Amino acid sequence: MALVVQKYGGTSVGDAERIRAVAEHVARTRQAGNEVVVVVSAMGKFTDDLIRLAGEISQTPPPRELDMLLTAGERISMALVSMALAQLNVESASFTGSQAGIITDTDHTRAKILEIHPDRIRAALDAGLVPVIAGFQGVSVEQNITTLGRGGSDVTAVAIASALNADVCEIYTDVTGVFSADPRVVTKARRLAKVSFDEMMEMAATGGRVLMLRSVEFARRHGVPLHVRSSFTWEPGTWIVEEDPTMEEAVVAAITDDTSEAKITVGGVPDRPGVAAQLFRELANQGINVDMIVQNTGTNGMTDISFTVAKTDLVAARDCCIEVKDQLGAAEVTSDDGIGRVSIIGAGMKSSPGVTALMFETLSNNGINIEMISTSSIRISCVVRAERVGDAVRFLHTAFGLDAA
Amino acid sequence: MALVVQKYGGTSVGDAERIRAVAEHVARTRQAGNEVVVVVSAMGKFTDDLIRLAGEISQTPPPRELDMLLTAGERISMALVSMALAQLNVESASFTGSQAGIITDTDHTRAKILEIHPDRIRAALDAGLVPVIAGFQGVSVEQNITTLGRGGSDVTAVAIASALNADVCEIYTDVTGVFSADPRVVTKARRLAKVSFDEMMEMAATGGRVLMLRSVEFARRHGVPLHVRSSFTWEPGTWIVEEDPTMEEAVVAAITDDTSEAKITVGGVPDRPGVAAQLFRELANQGINVDMIVQNTGTNGMTDISFTVAKTDLVAARDCCIEVKDQLGAAEVTSDDGIGRVSIIGAGMKSSPGVTALMFETLSNNGINIEMISTSSIRISCVVRAERVGDAVRFLHTAFGLDAA
Repeated sequence: MALVVQKYGGTSVGDAERIRAVAEHVARTRQAGNEVVVVVSAMGKFTDDLIRLAGEISQTPPPRELDMLLTAGERISMALVSMALAQLNVESASFTGSQAGIITDTDHTRAKILEIHPDRIRAALDAGLVPVIAGFQGVSVEQNITTLGRGGSDVTAVAIASALNADVCEIYTDVTGVFSADPRVVTKARRLAKVSFDEMMEMAATGGRVLMLRSVEFARRHGVPLHVRSSFTWEPGTWIVEEDPTMEEAVVAAITDDTSEAKITVGGVPDRPGVAAQLFRELANQGINVDMIVQNTGTNGMTDISFTVAKTDLVAARDCCIEVKDQLGAAEVTSDDGIGRVSIIGAGMKSSPGVTALMFETLSNNGINIEMISTSSIRISCVVRAERVGDAVRFLHTAFGLDAA
Repeated sequence: MALVVQKYGGTSVGDAERIRAVAEHVARTRQAGNEVVVVVSAMGKFTDDLIRLAGEISQTPPPRELDMLLTAGERISMALVSMALAQLNVESASFTGSQAGIITDTDHTRAKILEIHPDRIRAALDAGLVPVIAGFQGVSVEQNITTLGRGGSDVTAVAIASALNADVCEIYTDVTGVFSADPRVVTKARRLAKVSFDEMMEMAATGGRVLMLRSVEFARRHGVPLHVRSSFTWEPGTWIVEEDPTMEEAVVAAITDDTSEAKITVGGVPDRPGVAAQLFRELANQGINVDMIVQNTGTNGMTDISFTVAKTDLVAARDCCIEVKDQLGAAEVTSDDGIGRVSIIGAGMKSSPGVTALMFETLSNNGINIEMISTSSIRISCVVRAERVGDAVRFLHTAFGLDAA
């Protein structure tokens, strides 16, 4: 008998019919001899509706109250899922984040889980019930209701799976798994049967849309095997697991793309210690997340520092750079929101020389200019013009032998 | 400085504009030097929407889950009211029933409040905040979310006012107060400036639609002065207070009407002890609430027992009577859903002979036949044909001198 945590996203519980389908799948999983814990998101676009309603009242709602508002969404979907289970004679009980013992810090709208006290969940399981838990929410150490930020329901599912020492955390969504590239960009993209945590983290960080970086990190840290699959087809999807050292890994597992960022260049900076530190400290103080950073070795004691930020942060980041330009002794600040990033990811890359060369050649042979490069041990990312990103992904997908037959 | 509990019903918080108006009134009340605690219902028809959604999934949803579902409504409205207050620079914090310390029994969908631990509400007041509390909900002694049944938000407001020893509990609604009769029936109905708890309870029990019996009972028991007023005009409404023994009271304060009930008659019952007890025990065991009961002195050792029930309970009550008919030795069971009740209510009635006579004469002079009569010390109710109820109310309103000039 396995203990399975099943997380259902917004489209999976989007209406009464979908909720009934979810309940039937839970019942099937139980009939197959498993214990099941369900974690749900709010129905469809309900959270967006609530945000719009809040916007009619305040452009700057107090974060505590915004959290109180948004947690209504999961409350509705979890009660309905529990009712649908009752219709199938599956005994269940719904639990809010607070009732499930999800204790967070006090950072409203993006709280972090501090600890989990799943006593009531365990008791429900022991009593033969299916616990249905509200994703995305918790209660702070000051006893206020918090939300976990974007992708928070996945985090809830992984955290509960970890706390209960579950055998697997199944993430049900509206795609059938993790693909070798975005199927909307590459028609020949293949579903991956298995991806390592490291690869999945790199994919999430570079534009993979299926899972948020945060929940993959959490799953890896706590050793929770993830299984990403579709609640529309119910077929097996993609397993995200610890790298298996005995297996030979694909050199390149997937190509990701991301056009959500913009580039800022601080030019003509004196090449002395502390300059970069000062610049990025300022940006951090403004709450701006910086992604890729590239600094070239300077000539004449001068250097250029380029970095990417989310397009939504571009204006704030640019203003911040202009403000510190004189302190840094920099010559100029330029920005460019016409960029995109293409990345190749693969755990096998570590032991395969020539991957970098093949990537650069592929882009260059197809007339795609590389504007920035950054690498990790299992990833190479290139910034190119945004309008060439699609081509870049397709050419690389073919070059690395990923196209489906 | 007074402590004012303000309860806003569904129409009062029906949309963003209404919520802003509520926040402005709260701010004005504070500026006038008062402490304010707000209790809110769900927005407009939101609770009905949730019930419909539940109905798409189950005709018999588990009560625990129905409560979990329905409590989402107040969560939304209280967060939005708190946001609207923040926009006016009034510091506030919303609290669920559970956070407000409203502890109930475990009777889901119609829980009773057992105790209130308003520590967080008091702390919020002491910190200068306006607490905004979810009406209609609490948490059971088994730590499950409960709802308080129909009129539950008023009960929450009264209970909180009592626990905080508030100076007044203001019930904001979409009418301007309590009237001498339903203004839709009697165009000359007058708003009453003051009504005693006893009168208000009789009105609530006999068709007055402004307040539910339960919240008035609760207010009387705990000595909480109520002020029923409009959130659309904000003008002073009707005070519901302890009877003041030094004052001379109106002989008749109000006329109420009710056409929501039906009559059942169990005829030809042997006139011996225990028959009525057996009948009404059976009905109680079926969960059927009986309202008026009339038994005439029998002739030939036989009697008829008539009683009224809600029309929604008519079929069940009739079946129950037919089932026990033979045990009782009764001759027949008949029912009639074409009845209505008209009642006159007034604390001054106790010391005014002739009220009963004037009521019966007024009805008889206008050709309205009385089918059942029941009285209390401050009320007389007559059952008449449903289609004559409107006339009966209008004639009585005039006869007892209640018509507005």
